Amino acid sequence: MGVMSKKSTDAKNSPTDKSAQKNPMWGGRFAGGASAVMDAINVSIDNDKRFYAEDIAGSLAHAQMLQATGIISAQDCQQITQSLQQIGAQIKQGNFEFSRALEDIHMNIEYALSQDIGEVAGRLHTARSRNDQVATDFRLYIRNVIDGFDAIYCDLLTTLLDQAEKTADMVMPGYTHLQVAQPVTFGHHLMAYVEMFSRDQQRLQDCRKRVNQSPLGAAALAGTSFPIDRHMTADLLGFDMPMRNSLDAVSARDFALEFLSCLSIAAMHLSRLAEEFVLWSSAGFRFINLPDSFTSGSSIMPQKKNPDAAELVRAKSGRILGSFVALMQVMKALPLAYSKDMQEDKSPVFEAVDAFELMLRAMIGMIEHLTPNADKMLNALQHDFPEATDLADWLVQVLGIPFRQAHHVVGGIVAFAETKKVRLGALSLAELQQFHADISAEVFTILNVEQSVHSRHSFGGTAPDRVREAIIEARKKIGR
Amino acid sequence: MGVMSKKSTDAKNSPTDKSAQKNPMWGGRFAGGASAVMDAINVSIDNDKRFYAEDIAGSLAHAQMLQATGIISAQDCQQITQSLQQIGAQIKQGNFEFSRALEDIHMNIEYALSQDIGEVAGRLHTARSRNDQVATDFRLYIRNVIDGFDAIYCDLLTTLLDQAEKTADMVMPGYTHLQVAQPVTFGHHLMAYVEMFSRDQQRLQDCRKRVNQSPLGAAALAGTSFPIDRHMTADLLGFDMPMRNSLDAVSARDFALEFLSCLSIAAMHLSRLAEEFVLWSSAGFRFINLPDSFTSGSSIMPQKKNPDAAELVRAKSGRILGSFVALMQVMKALPLAYSKDMQEDKSPVFEAVDAFELMLRAMIGMIEHLTPNADKMLNALQHDFPEATDLADWLVQVLGIPFRQAHHVVGGIVAFAETKKVRLGALSLAELQQFHADISAEVFTILNVEQSVHSRHSFGGTAPDRVREAIIEARKKIGR
Amino acid sequence: MGVMSKKSTDAKNSPTDKSAQKNPMWGGRFAGGASAVMDAINVSIDNDKRFYAEDIAGSLAHAQMLQATGIISAQDCQQITQSLQQIGAQIKQGNFEFSRALEDIHMNIEYALSQDIGEVAGRLHTARSRNDQVATDFRLYIRNVIDGFDAIYCDLLTTLLDQAEKTADMVMPGYTHLQVAQPVTFGHHLMAYVEMFSRDQQRLQDCRKRVNQSPLGAAALAGTSFPIDRHMTADLLGFDMPMRNSLDAVSARDFALEFLSCLSIAAMHLSRLAEEFVLWSSAGFRFINLPDSFTSGSSIMPQKKNPDAAELVRAKSGRILGSFVALMQVMKALPLAYSKDMQEDKSPVFEAVDAFELMLRAMIGMIEHLTPNADKMLNALQHDFPEATDLADWLVQVLGIPFRQAHHVVGGIVAFAETKKVRLGALSLAELQQFHADISAEVFTILNVEQSVHSRHSFGGTAPDRVREAIIEARKKIGR
Amino acid sequence: MGVMSKKSTDAKNSPTDKSAQKNPMWGGRFAGGASAVMDAINVSIDNDKRFYAEDIAGSLAHAQMLQATGIISAQDCQQITQSLQQIGAQIKQGNFEFSRALEDIHMNIEYALSQDIGEVAGRLHTARSRNDQVATDFRLYIRNVIDGFDAIYCDLLTTLLDQAEKTADMVMPGYTHLQVAQPVTFGHHLMAYVEMFSRDQQRLQDCRKRVNQSPLGAAALAGTSFPIDRHMTADLLGFDMPMRNSLDAVSARDFALEFLSCLSIAAMHLSRLAEEFVLWSSAGFRFINLPDSFTSGSSIMPQKKNPDAAELVRAKSGRILGSFVALMQVMKALPLAYSKDMQEDKSPVFEAVDAFELMLRAMIGMIEHLTPNADKMLNALQHDFPEATDLADWLVQVLGIPFRQAHHVVGGIVAFAETKKVRLGALSLAELQQFHADISAEVFTILNVEQSVHSRHSFGGTAPDRVREAIIEARKKIGR
Repeated sequence: MGVMSKKSTDAKNSPTDKSAQKNPMWGGRFAGGASAVMDAINVSIDNDKRFYAEDIAGSLAHAQMLQATGIISAQDCQQITQSLQQIGAQIKQGNFEFSRALEDIHMNIEYALSQDIGEVAGRLHTARSRNDQVATDFRLYIRNVIDGFDAIYCDLLTTLLDQAEKTADMVMPGYTHLQVAQPVTFGHHLMAYVEMFSRDQQRLQDCRKRVNQSPLGAAALAGTSFPIDRHMTADLLGFDMPMRNSLDAVSARDFALEFLSCLSIAAMHLSRLAEEFVLWSSAGFRFINLPDSFTSGSSIMPQKKNPDAAELVRAKSGRILGSFVALMQVMKALPLAYSKDMQEDKSPVFEAVDAFELMLRAMIGMIEHLTPNADKMLNALQHDFPEATDLADWLVQVLGIPFRQAHHVVGGIVAFAETKKVRLGALSLAELQQFHADISAEVFTILNVEQSVHSRHSFGGTAPDRVREAIIEARKKIGR
Repeated sequence: MGVMSKKSTDAKNSPTDKSAQKNPMWGGRFAGGASAVMDAINVSIDNDKRFYAEDIAGSLAHAQMLQATGIISAQDCQQITQSLQQIGAQIKQGNFEFSRALEDIHMNIEYALSQDIGEVAGRLHTARSRNDQVATDFRLYIRNVIDGFDAIYCDLLTTLLDQAEKTADMVMPGYTHLQVAQPVTFGHHLMAYVEMFSRDQQRLQDCRKRVNQSPLGAAALAGTSFPIDRHMTADLLGFDMPMRNSLDAVSARDFALEFLSCLSIAAMHLSRLAEEFVLWSSAGFRFINLPDSFTSGSSIMPQKKNPDAAELVRAKSGRILGSFVALMQVMKALPLAYSKDMQEDKSPVFEAVDAFELMLRAMIGMIEHLTPNADKMLNALQHDFPEATDLADWLVQVLGIPFRQAHHVVGGIVAFAETKKVRLGALSLAELQQFHADISAEVFTILNVEQSVHSRHSFGGTAPDRVREAIIEARKKIGR
Repeated sequence: MGVMSKKSTDAKNSPTDKSAQKNPMWGGRFAGGASAVMDAINVSIDNDKRFYAEDIAGSLAHAQMLQATGIISAQDCQQITQSLQQIGAQIKQGNFEFSRALEDIHMNIEYALSQDIGEVAGRLHTARSRNDQVATDFRLYIRNVIDGFDAIYCDLLTTLLDQAEKTADMVMPGYTHLQVAQPVTFGHHLMAYVEMFSRDQQRLQDCRKRVNQSPLGAAALAGTSFPIDRHMTADLLGFDMPMRNSLDAVSARDFALEFLSCLSIAAMHLSRLAEEFVLWSSAGFRFINLPDSFTSGSSIMPQKKNPDAAELVRAKSGRILGSFVALMQVMKALPLAYSKDMQEDKSPVFEAVDAFELMLRAMIGMIEHLTPNADKMLNALQHDFPEATDLADWLVQVLGIPFRQAHHVVGGIVAFAETKKVRLGALSLAELQQFHADISAEVFTILNVEQSVHSRHSFGGTAPDRVREAIIEARKKIGR
Repeated sequence: MGVMSKKSTDAKNSPTDKSAQKNPMWGGRFAGGASAVMDAINVSIDNDKRFYAEDIAGSLAHAQMLQATGIISAQDCQQITQSLQQIGAQIKQGNFEFSRALEDIHMNIEYALSQDIGEVAGRLHTARSRNDQVATDFRLYIRNVIDGFDAIYCDLLTTLLDQAEKTADMVMPGYTHLQVAQPVTFGHHLMAYVEMFSRDQQRLQDCRKRVNQSPLGAAALAGTSFPIDRHMTADLLGFDMPMRNSLDAVSARDFALEFLSCLSIAAMHLSRLAEEFVLWSSAGFRFINLPDSFTSGSSIMPQKKNPDAAELVRAKSGRILGSFVALMQVMKALPLAYSKDMQEDKSPVFEAVDAFELMLRAMIGMIEHLTPNADKMLNALQHDFPEATDLADWLVQVLGIPFRQAHHVVGGIVAFAETKKVRLGALSLAELQQFHADISAEVFTILNVEQSVHSRHSFGGTAPDRVREAIIEARKKIGR
């Protein structure tokens, strides 16, 4: 007799009851019928409690403004303020019981407030709606996350720069098409990621400008007849300005989409470095040893080090792109103003934030503690004639041959060296001169990979002093 | 003084410590350094404990086979079996403590087994690896979910069919470009979704064939030298067959991708009906009243019924597409065999499953309890000349005029009726004859919307008896 | 006998020849075998000829720099320059024959150059590679497109502002959940899109900063030993600066991804307005008449106006998101430096550019020529009690009742009015006072929709003078 | 002076004319104003002429049915048939002039028909609409493409099987995490792709069932009052059945989405093999030589072989996923029945079809002509102790040690061998016995990689005779 029957539902549903709704494993939680289903699809507290601090900050600012504009009394404001601060402390300490019946973070907090201070609590929601409130909370949350990521990026860049500084002279193969092309240095290679990650960081800063605008006071969708001061609440909450159109304020989610697009692109960059870590750790390369703390072993093959963290960084880029696509699909063709669809904006953002933070932190850890293997890198340059372009450039620069013709000459030399199975520098002068009579012994000075990297001294080139210049410049930018 | 300072990080990081890693809110959980980060990115138990039952079922089948093939003794098998069943019961009852240190569901269960029965536990993993084990669990899980969804689809279709049966005669406008085009019936419109949802259900059944194959016994990647019987374990677990290539068995995730693509397409269909519910509930239509249990009200506007559940169904289609894209991005260009990247297959699937189940259940609830408003639908047909094509068809059928010419004649009549601001049926015979002399009084029999829907009697057409035929056929297919 | 046989392949493949490659319809163009397939998959000239002008501009700048730094002679530079300009003119006039054998735009132009001026042509490619050349071309192209879009956005915004100005007083229903919520003005509603589109325009400007950096001189991947001046070429080409790392310069495609993400988000906004145009044109609303030039009719129903252009704008947002996802998938986990995969960056960009330009232009045309229907909008406010929140605010402001309590009172009044089937303003004072004794006759001054919109005078609110202020501010920003 | 001015628009727009619409480069083609824009966004003939043959086939079947049911005369039918066949021949020969003014393929052909046979042409469109016509054409087109792909898949599988047969004994490293894990054979590795590709092929066949249903006769959306025979047209066109609901028939696009999802998943599999080709061609592996015809060289490094075709196959998977996402975004939340949005279904499908065909053909070419390098593969197994699991299995099988304990013993031995820098087989019996006293000399028979692969004889395992069995089975399935 089988552990499971062929058709697994048979085991789960009695023959007389085919309904999945009665299945204790499947849908048992929906025994309550419509209300249980509606509860499950509609209630957002499990998600949005994550920005309780932002919700309270928004309410504190709103209360302060309502008092300043004479809409509520100083005494009411004080009561509201004290009570909100207390609620915030309770939640922080884990002493707050969230209620699903109250659906979302706003109602949970407002209810607690009314339990605490009674009817006065009802004055807080004057000239405000959940529509502008949730937009305010979410913008504050994303802004704070951006600021957090900004700090982590500084750590990441510093770690990369430290590693690049140590390896600015370490020669390694530069690849095109994963084929050895020209020598570069390991430090130079890492600096390419400094550039990419810096742009990712900058992109988030540009995004911050559009996130950091205050919807508060847009009310449900049309503004309000109360004499509120939206500039004041914006200022109190650290927003750069109040949003200029109330319908836009409650309907727009491009701030979240832009944030997710920034993370998607940044995650793509991280996936590229992660891929290189996986490659460089493999037997065909062994250019680096990843730290034990970010790899996994095997009880049976203790020498084996699987680059688990690098693989997970690479993979998690998928999740973040998925979040972007998910929210794009939600927002497509949605008429103004607020629609409930927008409640589906939070999960994709929270998941992307969590995944991205882990990616950054794992990357920092791996970069900081990896050990580059200079011998293996150098060894990988012994074949494949990586000095070929140096030779061609020498022909152009020293002998004045047009570039395309120089290429042709070098092509012949390389083919010859390949037949002889020797490096270019191991050919004799006579052999070289068979391909161009004017080649002189001076050519041997450039036929080695160290010389090659030093020669590539153009701005942004791989010459070690250029790399060190770039490191200094990059350190200046992040102020470390 | 602001509630939050302009640059939120200032508030969170002291001036002398800019590092986000020290920030108690941000990254505090990573104070443990590398190991905490690795733990957070690497440990999967929070996710994969979801298929503990499948993991235990797989182990039970494996143990039974190991005994049958003489690889372990009957006594060992019995000990393992009893202990595993007990562990399964504990987990089900919530009496099992999962350990993050043991990383995943497989090690958690194996460790519990070894605690229970000692060294014998170590024999269970003979001729098996976590690579084939996790693939087995995940395939069993998805198969079971497909079977669960299949049952819910039967509920959904039954509910639609019941509603369609009641409304097979209820005339409503059929739209193209959201413009009134021709009369159809509400039942006919619902039956279009019966067709779509049936294909979605069928697609999942086709997917099931590719899901329901056993990787067990592929071991790490190459198969094993133990004389195992993969057909036996496949059979015990209700799989259709063992997978034919061990590398494929541990490396493939197209079964999960196909499953997600099926859900994505099915969710798109649900989003279309949800969109129609939102439209039909709005003031411009009022074709239906959604049940209170799936709408939300407003304390201030008690008459207002926001179609929250419909909006959420519409929106959740985004999440499911996002899951598909996420896993596609994970699997793209991944070399064989197992890579850790594949651990990122579970979150997208679990999230899509949860969202999709809610979508289905909310849709069932809304369809079952919605109230169609026949008057409003009929009223929406009083303008826009929905009988125009009926008139043209009459000209072709009765007078033998070529179709394109008939169109031209009707165009003239409609333009005339529009000027007079009357329905086509309200024109006099003389007026009609100005556009074509042969038009007879018989024409008035077809110039009304009820007649129109009854006339469209072609297979699949909106004529009520055709709709009823279709309902009977559909009921037969689902056997209810 | 069937027009097509049941299994269409039967008709196409003879029983003795199952190979699709022999099928004249399918794959006939691949009769040439491997070389034909490689040609089809590898050759990019059909695509990249689109940036011939950028390619020539890049070469002109490069030549000028090579002369300035003494790498080539003045005479060579002059020859190269004149010939390139001539080639550019030929291509522009359509007198240039592109060759697939030469694969890409770079080789096509270089070959024409060598045909024209002989061996000297071979000097142009000194200190350059196709890797930095294509990155330069593509960045120039996208920058130019961004500048083009910037100008079109100014047109779009101007058109919207003109329309908003005309309709700043025109009262329409504001919706939440597609249910009538509060009155707003049509001008205010349009101004929400001014805000969204302005952010989209600004996002492209931020993107421009990262696009407009020069890869030229990075050579294949490592820089060069020639004494080139990358700042000079950057300057000549209008780039803001040379890129700081040669590996990054040839490997990065985040500039294209960011561009596509900007378009995706912008297209999402356009899809929302397009959706509203479709809704507003439908029988349930009729808030606007779209211009004939952007709708299609029916020969049989001449009154019918299908909002084709609006539907296509809505739909084309899909294509643009698809382009972003396509390129993300290409770039995921790609190791440095150049890989051939990157050749797949151009199609998604070109397609997105074409679609997006059409979306913008169609939107401008529709906005400019649409006719709003004030009566229909006003009429849609006769039901659903849109003054409910005004009444609540009055209770708070005038009678000093806490907000939540005011809501409760109004809820009662609305329910009563609904039973009586009258508007709130049609209730008697006595009736109102049954719900709160202090309500005075003054309340009737606010119980109408015009008054409602004028009262919402908070910053960003829908009050007509606020809308006009916003229009003036917006005009200032675009300088028109 | 710069080649381009800093702000590129300056060059393009005169100071007094900022409008992009006047810019000759940008938007010049839109000088015609609204009509030019509408033409550009609305006209589909450039796209849909691709299925002219399907359109004509559909019309032929429709005409034949109209005659059979007495709706048109035999004479009319004959005239229509002859003329349509002639038009089809003209288009095929390139002698047909498509007109943009006629918008789409249907109107182009109908117009040509009316030019040819006059008023009779007008009878063809009886009981039909462009809505069911385009759905019919598109389904026929995709079905034909599926049949074409099916044949190419047979070629691909045959090529793989031939290569696998030659290499069923060729030992290579099997990887997990891109780390050497256990020996497998090259043939076994290729057979993993036979499994994946077979599922991809099967998935398309399942999709075909849902594609191959006839919408013809659904008319605009509601069916028709003409006594048509939809089963007859379905049969004539090789459809499996007529679609059962007229609204569904014209509104559904899940058939195209499922097709794109099948291609996306299949393309993902191709990207994995392409990735392996890139890896195996690189210096760190050199397991294979790709054929010259699918690689590119370098004039300067003639030994270099860039795996261009493999990279492009890998990359083109992005485009196909992009097409799926694009169409999902189009269809999301679209109300029934036909909306113009659906016109955007064709580009994503056509582009995916073209890309996918190239991917398949390039893959066939590469597989057929690649040269595996047995020495390199074997050499890559000299390190990393790939026999470790064989040793553990031996301990379990021969000495009866529990699996987990055997792992522990082997872990010690591997660590010891690593210190000594020797292979496991190079340790002495005495050394081995230090870790477990019962180890006998027999153990050396299993400590080599050939023995390892032969021992893995479980169903689906890498043992060469198992691989050959699998090849035979696979050949049977495709009948070659």
